[in-house]
Amino acid sequence: MRTILIIGAGRSASSLIQYLLNKSDEENLHLIIGDLSLASAQKKINNHPNATAIALDVFDQNQRTALVQKVDIVISMLPAHLHIEVAKDCIAYKKHLVTASYISDAMQELDSAAKENNLIFMNEVGLDPGIDHMSAMKVIHEIKAKGGKMLLFESFCGGLVAPESDTNLWNYKFTWAPRNVVLAGQGGAAKFIQEGTYKYIPYWNLFRRTEFLEVEGYGRFEAYSNRDSLKYLDVYGLKDVLTLYRGTIRRVGFSKAWNMFVQLGMTDDSYVMEGSEEMSYRQFVNSFLPYHPTDSVEIKMRFILKIDQDDIMWDKLLELDLFNPNKKVGLKEATPAQILEKILTDSWTLQPKDKDMIVMYHKFGYELNGKKEQIDSKMVCIGEDQTYTAMAKTVGLPVAMATLLILNGKIKTPGVQLPIREEVYLPILKELEEFGVVFKEQIVPYLGYNA
Amino acid sequence: MRTILIIGAGRSASSLIQYLLNKSDEENLHLIIGDLSLASAQKKINNHPNATAIALDVFDQNQRTALVQKVDIVISMLPAHLHIEVAKDCIAYKKHLVTASYISDAMQELDSAAKENNLIFMNEVGLDPGIDHMSAMKVIHEIKAKGGKMLLFESFCGGLVAPESDTNLWNYKFTWAPRNVVLAGQGGAAKFIQEGTYKYIPYWNLFRRTEFLEVEGYGRFEAYSNRDSLKYLDVYGLKDVLTLYRGTIRRVGFSKAWNMFVQLGMTDDSYVMEGSEEMSYRQFVNSFLPYHPTDSVEIKMRFILKIDQDDIMWDKLLELDLFNPNKKVGLKEATPAQILEKILTDSWTLQPKDKDMIVMYHKFGYELNGKKEQIDSKMVCIGEDQTYTAMAKTVGLPVAMATLLILNGKIKTPGVQLPIREEVYLPILKELEEFGVVFKEQIVPYLGYNA
Repeated sequence: MRTILIIGAGRSASSLIQYLLNKSDEENLHLIIGDLSLASAQKKINNHPNATAIALDVFDQNQRTALVQKVDIVISMLPAHLHIEVAKDCIAYKKHLVTASYISDAMQELDSAAKENNLIFMNEVGLDPGIDHMSAMKVIHEIKAKGGKMLLFESFCGGLVAPESDTNLWNYKFTWAPRNVVLAGQGGAAKFIQEGTYKYIPYWNLFRRTEFLEVEGYGRFEAYSNRDSLKYLDVYGLKDVLTLYRGTIRRVGFSKAWNMFVQLGMTDDSYVMEGSEEMSYRQFVNSFLPYHPTDSVEIKMRFILKIDQDDIMWDKLLELDLFNPNKKVGLKEATPAQILEKILTDSWTLQPKDKDMIVMYHKFGYELNGKKEQIDSKMVCIGEDQTYTAMAKTVGLPVAMATLLILNGKIKTPGVQLPIREEVYLPILKELEEFGVVFKEQIVPYLGYNA
Repeated sequence: MRTILIIGAGRSASSLIQYLLNKSDEENLHLIIGDLSLASAQKKINNHPNATAIALDVFDQNQRTALVQKVDIVISMLPAHLHIEVAKDCIAYKKHLVTASYISDAMQELDSAAKENNLIFMNEVGLDPGIDHMSAMKVIHEIKAKGGKMLLFESFCGGLVAPESDTNLWNYKFTWAPRNVVLAGQGGAAKFIQEGTYKYIPYWNLFRRTEFLEVEGYGRFEAYSNRDSLKYLDVYGLKDVLTLYRGTIRRVGFSKAWNMFVQLGMTDDSYVMEGSEEMSYRQFVNSFLPYHPTDSVEIKMRFILKIDQDDIMWDKLLELDLFNPNKKVGLKEATPAQILEKILTDSWTLQPKDKDMIVMYHKFGYELNGKKEQIDSKMVCIGEDQTYTAMAKTVGLPVAMATLLILNGKIKTPGVQLPIREEVYLPILKELEEFGVVFKEQIVPYLGYNA
């Protein structure tokens, strides 16, 4: 019997837990699901005999260490900044650890301790980061193995609404933490390389510097730049590459419309708005527009955004009921970003029958035997329902698979890891295909970076 | 004999030191001028018998405390964040202190210690902050003394080039720390109140939301909003005012052109640009523009800024030689803001005969005896030369005058202060008039906030 402790039974844990429960008999597994909410944990295991649900406060050191001691491996699905105490327990009691989060500096510092104890701390093994690493490294390693030289790497990912549930003018609904969508791109200029030139885009231009992507059967998408593409130079071994760019996928037109919020300052999370609780949606909008004794909020808004009344951008704003004088914000001491999130949640919440969709798109440009070529690799995954969403599947399944591979001794390399080794990505990518997560690779002409 | 320690003999100290030296015989003063550069300190006193120049490292605690002990009052003209150690010495050795900087939280914490020791720590007694407080509080107190109720307070200040030296398309030269000009407006949304409504402007809209100001004899100016006007609600006792707005004055057209740099991300100080030292001005510009194999930097720039080749905005860019492929940045590990500062300094440095100009403009709206009225108060000060600049005069003279008033027991209120009391502003504003710093007040119709 191998015991797995899963900390955090939120939305992203459903496919993860389902996978492990389905394997629990044949693999001889027992799961302990700990969540601040016992009900959440119980709901996830649904009386399965091979699992125990417990109420767990991760800040309760005694409870946490007692649990870590008695299991074989720990999966932390907590928010990224909460992993570190769990990770230290794992060092202390010599347990493996799996997370879907970026490796923090604090986590990286545990690398030698993990190695000394022959422990595997596998991070970034969800979707993005996770499947992006694995599907990219597989192709990059294949190109290099043939003697190819990498010239270009572009990588895009987006969590969207499935075509059959795409019912609003924004072609977007919240399929993941709305707060992260509202704050996307903040905190510093986007940095990348195009044809050997370092490029920088400030936040307030990010959503105007998009590029288009075409996915057969799903139509056209756009992508805006992620914040820091440069760190992938090292991680992926792409030091001499001419083009390196990572971006977030949306449906065409989203970014141009989202930019209206950015321009007005509605995505700012750095200050509290005076009187936010009693403020109407209309007053919220007016806070970002110049005062005028008689001009309407509408005309001021159109003027400052320089759009006409028959512009589709205007319809997108109307669809959100943004100018309603009777709808109250109802949030105490809220920032603009929190208020915008509230307004958007009214319109962009998935309906019971709605499904989500994950789209991933990589471009690999390379020179092989004196010839320049490109491989495009694309993956689309549609959710089953609101529990087994595409997001929950693509985040949770690789975490679950990595956990089992570690327990079964298939993943061997100790230390603070991310899934860029064959021993990790080959079995996981292969097994993901059984769950509908399939990358289609095709060779296309290499045109270099081409806007 | 009263001894005054002046720490920091930079550009802003020239008028300050000149004033005190001129008074030194009749007032029985001895000055000790301490600067990191002995030469700077010596130059400022020019062999005057009532002054001593010394090389002073403000981080050398022994030297600093030995000096503070033997003087009667300390003037700190250091950068704001360096005052605090000096201030603590002043508490320890029971000396008064004068600065031209905003009261930091650390400084404010010394308030009760200062009061217990009957010490005056007079801050914000330069130009802005300084003369702005004094000239505003004088009028506000007069209005309130008559029984008037304040409705509106708007206050604007700018350091500019004098009309006779205004020789470039930007109508601007650096008359003060260039770095502060490049970074102006960053670090959070601008906040103010217009006709009872709180308004917020993000940094990237700041330079497009200007208002116009007219100063008789000097023509038209514009102003963009300062970062936080709201703190003046308390400081000036304006709690129920309908409009509260503070802004920075430029010549008309400056902000629209400056906004080009902001939009492109050239004012960002948060990251280092790859290869900055060997980068040409042209490459600097291209870093903020999309890659294209054949389009020129010029056409990409005009396209992204949406300006034509015959737009005056374009001429402003050309005047800066921004597209020169041969001029090297020559700065190691520089941020965009540092590089932009370098490029602008090539063009915007005062020439030997150039003079600077300070413009201040307040609007006071109020209700008195059932009638609404407004007082506009304006001051223009032109520099004498490049030593006794308008900036040095308006920053340094109030500091010097406050110091003498404290020494002579005319300013009496102990504690951490700013110059908002009659005992401070009445004598200083009166004496400033002898030096050409004259506010012209006129009653105008009250129109409320009026864009």
